[in-house]
Amino acid sequence: MWIYEKMLEYPVKIKNPNPKMAKIIITQYGGPDGELGAALRYLSQRFSMITPQAIGTLNDIGTEELAHLEMVGAMVRQLLKGASLEEIEKAGMSAYYADHDRGVYPASASGVPFSAAGIQSKGDPIVDLTENLAAEQKARATYEYLINMADDPDVIEPLKFLREREVVHFQRFGEALRIVQDYLQEPHLFIMPKPDFLNK
Amino acid sequence: MWIYEKMLEYPVKIKNPNPKMAKIIITQYGGPDGELGAALRYLSQRFSMITPQAIGTLNDIGTEELAHLEMVGAMVRQLLKGASLEEIEKAGMSAYYADHDRGVYPASASGVPFSAAGIQSKGDPIVDLTENLAAEQKARATYEYLINMADDPDVIEPLKFLREREVVHFQRFGEALRIVQDYLQEPHLFIMPKPDFLNK
Amino acid sequence: MWIYEKMLEYPVKIKNPNPKMAKIIITQYGGPDGELGAALRYLSQRFSMITPQAIGTLNDIGTEELAHLEMVGAMVRQLLKGASLEEIEKAGMSAYYADHDRGVYPASASGVPFSAAGIQSKGDPIVDLTENLAAEQKARATYEYLINMADDPDVIEPLKFLREREVVHFQRFGEALRIVQDYLQEPHLFIMPKPDFLNK
Amino acid sequence: MWIYEKMLEYPVKIKNPNPKMAKIIITQYGGPDGELGAALRYLSQRFSMITPQAIGTLNDIGTEELAHLEMVGAMVRQLLKGASLEEIEKAGMSAYYADHDRGVYPASASGVPFSAAGIQSKGDPIVDLTENLAAEQKARATYEYLINMADDPDVIEPLKFLREREVVHFQRFGEALRIVQDYLQEPHLFIMPKPDFLNK
Amino acid sequence: MWIYEKMLEYPVKIKNPNPKMAKIIITQYGGPDGELGAALRYLSQRFSMITPQAIGTLNDIGTEELAHLEMVGAMVRQLLKGASLEEIEKAGMSAYYADHDRGVYPASASGVPFSAAGIQSKGDPIVDLTENLAAEQKARATYEYLINMADDPDVIEPLKFLREREVVHFQRFGEALRIVQDYLQEPHLFIMPKPDFLNK
Amino acid sequence: MWIYEKMLEYPVKIKNPNPKMAKIIITQYGGPDGELGAALRYLSQRFSMITPQAIGTLNDIGTEELAHLEMVGAMVRQLLKGASLEEIEKAGMSAYYADHDRGVYPASASGVPFSAAGIQSKGDPIVDLTENLAAEQKARATYEYLINMADDPDVIEPLKFLREREVVHFQRFGEALRIVQDYLQEPHLFIMPKPDFLNK
Repeated sequence: MWIYEKMLEYPVKIKNPNPKMAKIIITQYGGPDGELGAALRYLSQRFSMITPQAIGTLNDIGTEELAHLEMVGAMVRQLLKGASLEEIEKAGMSAYYADHDRGVYPASASGVPFSAAGIQSKGDPIVDLTENLAAEQKARATYEYLINMADDPDVIEPLKFLREREVVHFQRFGEALRIVQDYLQEPHLFIMPKPDFLNK
Repeated sequence: MWIYEKMLEYPVKIKNPNPKMAKIIITQYGGPDGELGAALRYLSQRFSMITPQAIGTLNDIGTEELAHLEMVGAMVRQLLKGASLEEIEKAGMSAYYADHDRGVYPASASGVPFSAAGIQSKGDPIVDLTENLAAEQKARATYEYLINMADDPDVIEPLKFLREREVVHFQRFGEALRIVQDYLQEPHLFIMPKPDFLNK
Repeated sequence: MWIYEKMLEYPVKIKNPNPKMAKIIITQYGGPDGELGAALRYLSQRFSMITPQAIGTLNDIGTEELAHLEMVGAMVRQLLKGASLEEIEKAGMSAYYADHDRGVYPASASGVPFSAAGIQSKGDPIVDLTENLAAEQKARATYEYLINMADDPDVIEPLKFLREREVVHFQRFGEALRIVQDYLQEPHLFIMPKPDFLNK
Repeated sequence: MWIYEKMLEYPVKIKNPNPKMAKIIITQYGGPDGELGAALRYLSQRFSMITPQAIGTLNDIGTEELAHLEMVGAMVRQLLKGASLEEIEKAGMSAYYADHDRGVYPASASGVPFSAAGIQSKGDPIVDLTENLAAEQKARATYEYLINMADDPDVIEPLKFLREREVVHFQRFGEALRIVQDYLQEPHLFIMPKPDFLNK
Repeated sequence: MWIYEKMLEYPVKIKNPNPKMAKIIITQYGGPDGELGAALRYLSQRFSMITPQAIGTLNDIGTEELAHLEMVGAMVRQLLKGASLEEIEKAGMSAYYADHDRGVYPASASGVPFSAAGIQSKGDPIVDLTENLAAEQKARATYEYLINMADDPDVIEPLKFLREREVVHFQRFGEALRIVQDYLQEPHLFIMPKPDFLNK
Repeated sequence: MWIYEKMLEYPVKIKNPNPKMAKIIITQYGGPDGELGAALRYLSQRFSMITPQAIGTLNDIGTEELAHLEMVGAMVRQLLKGASLEEIEKAGMSAYYADHDRGVYPASASGVPFSAAGIQSKGDPIVDLTENLAAEQKARATYEYLINMADDPDVIEPLKFLREREVVHFQRFGEALRIVQDYLQEPHLFIMPKPDFLNK
């Protein structure tokens, strides 16, 4: 279970509303490579992961991605809150406004509601950790694209922080993968149940 | 942000694997009225909610739903972990197995990946709190249907606990709705921005 | 079954094409809180509803939502019919045009095809009526957002009418909920089948 | 707009509950080639159809498909209403039960919520009428598959009636297509707006 | 199986980047009536088609649609490759950019990921061939809408070629349908298995 | 473009119909980690890939995945073709039958139509190749789960072949990733356009 601590992992204080940026940053809230998908992927994979370190990595990073989800939500809200209807329309964000006003809803930049179809939890530790390496790369690239589109330092700084964290997570999943691979190659006292088709 | 505490909100200790129950309980993990949808709904609505109490209610309950998501995931995992392939097939769960083995993946009982299309965040406090009353009722009913199908006390007890919590949440959202309605009817020093179409 | 009567519930006569408004009004045709979802929700819930009044309410309002669907479709068509390609492009509606020309297709403002994932039919009368209270609130809010974006009285008047009807429906579902709650608390001659888990 | 008449287009009186049949018949309620998709397709295409006969055909058949939707819903409800939990589970319908009890929800036989992605409304009369020929063929085939699986005359008779109607609709759409094709080849007093790319 | 030949079926050489056109042409890559859906539909239907000619037609056209998919992908890439961020933003394509940079991803013009919900494979030769007549009409119309929006001959020429091919495919599916219908009406030495409900 | 060669990459000759296996093997046709997703992912990423080897790898493997898609389709068809209705029902495959008879349709084992939401094409060569490593691992695991459920050598042999190929593809994507990483670290005569946010 989780305890809420009333602070963001990294401060988000955007002074100028900017629906153009809200329109695309939302994709890291509910889009294909966003923080919701990341948190959900890691926290789901935990249940079938092996070795204490790899389980701990999934738990830590999954929990941190929830904090990132909160940061991204705060960014979207601050970018939208004071925006006029005219600014929203000009930013090509009237479709979002029609369904969600200036609230925060888990969708991609194109407005597609979040779907777990973009994540996987396979019950196989090697597979899941490889999936996570890809996930961190995809999230890292998205933050770069968002930074490319941004010009307000209040927006760029938290995006850079979030991008950095994905790079760190990538490293940590790489280490976890190595540990799990080593572990599976060592002789163990118990018998691995899965590849029983080998006898066929 | 959230701090992880290494315990479940309510103990889950299922001694007998039972893929038949795993097949349907998963719907409270990633199905239309499940805990993921609940947590995501409340934690997203927070950003545009008004009055400290209502914001606090969304935050508290959203955080608790994450704990429930974890409990449901633990149930699914324990029901699947020791199940034989034969039991899985007999339980009509071979489709799930083919894609996720005995792992935990956010899908409905029918196997549809979680979609945020089942939740809403409207930017309007009255709307969002009414949405939540419905959400708690739907989750409560699902737990009843699951309990109706269960016969193992190890499964029934946590389901009953979870059902109870939905009833409590329903009450709390009802109170929050009343507070917000009162607040919106009191004279305030600032001017409400939205219904500017009234002048048209 | 239904008999078609060749008139709209409320006249729609829009003289000036306006793809900008078509782009967002379509969301009440096929979007998450639109008239199609409403009609489908109520007409589906009918089958498991109890008490003649509540069944009648679902039937009446479900039927009226079909009429609203028709009105919204007529608005979208009139806003699009005479629009030039240039106007369509300027309005950010070229994506819709590429797939549907100036026809009417059940999608959200963002272009996501209508999905029943946004509605529920739970087999439990209390749950379904609470779901409907939320549905009416969500539809009401969407109409307000659309009116906020509109400036043509030909568009605003039918939107206001439709918003009003959602408020009336909200009241009627509130009454139906009270009737059903009373009914379920009265002693009846027959035995309620569901909560049989209470004996567990 | 539509007036509800309190009768089914064809009587549905199923004496024996049968969740096995409910599980598959639901696909004509909310599945890919079901009555909801049909009604929605025709009633949406109406807005951009040409010639009074073709518009009338879409309107008539769209309205009749609503009556068929009601019939299919009634069948599903009657097949589920008196079924025991044990029968539901044996029929492989526990996933549906977990989310919808014995209610009627617009999903495919596999449990995928209805999606308008399976229908099209293209703004072009020839295209839309050809789409409808295919739609009627697909619905006809689905009824045949359902009849193949059925053994209760109370179930078979309404399915046969519904299958017959699809054949009739197919004929009527064929005629409408011929009328529209003739019309488009005749010289008209007004100028057809679309294929303006021919001058490029 | 397929052998790749390193050439496009028709040359695509677009000199001027134009994200406005990329934004809508992508719909023929991954949209509802696009080439991916076409190829997948025909190549899937093959497995249950009857008569050598009809099977051959599905195979030929399915294979050609793969070539068209490649052409459309090349168009999208060439239209995006040299585009500046400013041009992308002005073209209303920032949402696509945020998730896919200037890469090619199978989505509709609105940004909805490709879904097979828009295609059908029914196991019935008459149904499938009728479905294909509609599919070709829909694809043909989409190409016309795209041509209507285009003004660069480098873009218009391949679109015209692709439109032409859909017309040819429509003819070929019409012929296949006639052959299959004739075949099913001739006396055969084997017995048709399906309509066994006729004895009911 | 592609030339069709009338043979399967590896022979599929299943003598005994078995809808139980068809029900799960279909997931490698249209499921989350199946051959359609693989082919589409690699053939889409090609357009923005760098270095001739990496482009060639995507092209070769994408083309081979099309051949695998064909093999999997052939397996599903052979497993279904001669199956009786009773066998289909017993195998829990009546839902599939109701919509597709014994045809081949791109869906997951649970019956969810194929969605491109499970694949990504990011416009960044490092990201895309890492995504592919994960994709091959996921496909490999799915084949293992399918083999675990199979007992007919006619089914097991082609599944083993397909599993082997995923392992080979994994190696080849690993090599391509190394080549691309080296290439990006070498000094080049042209300037890399993307990370222009570094100057911010």
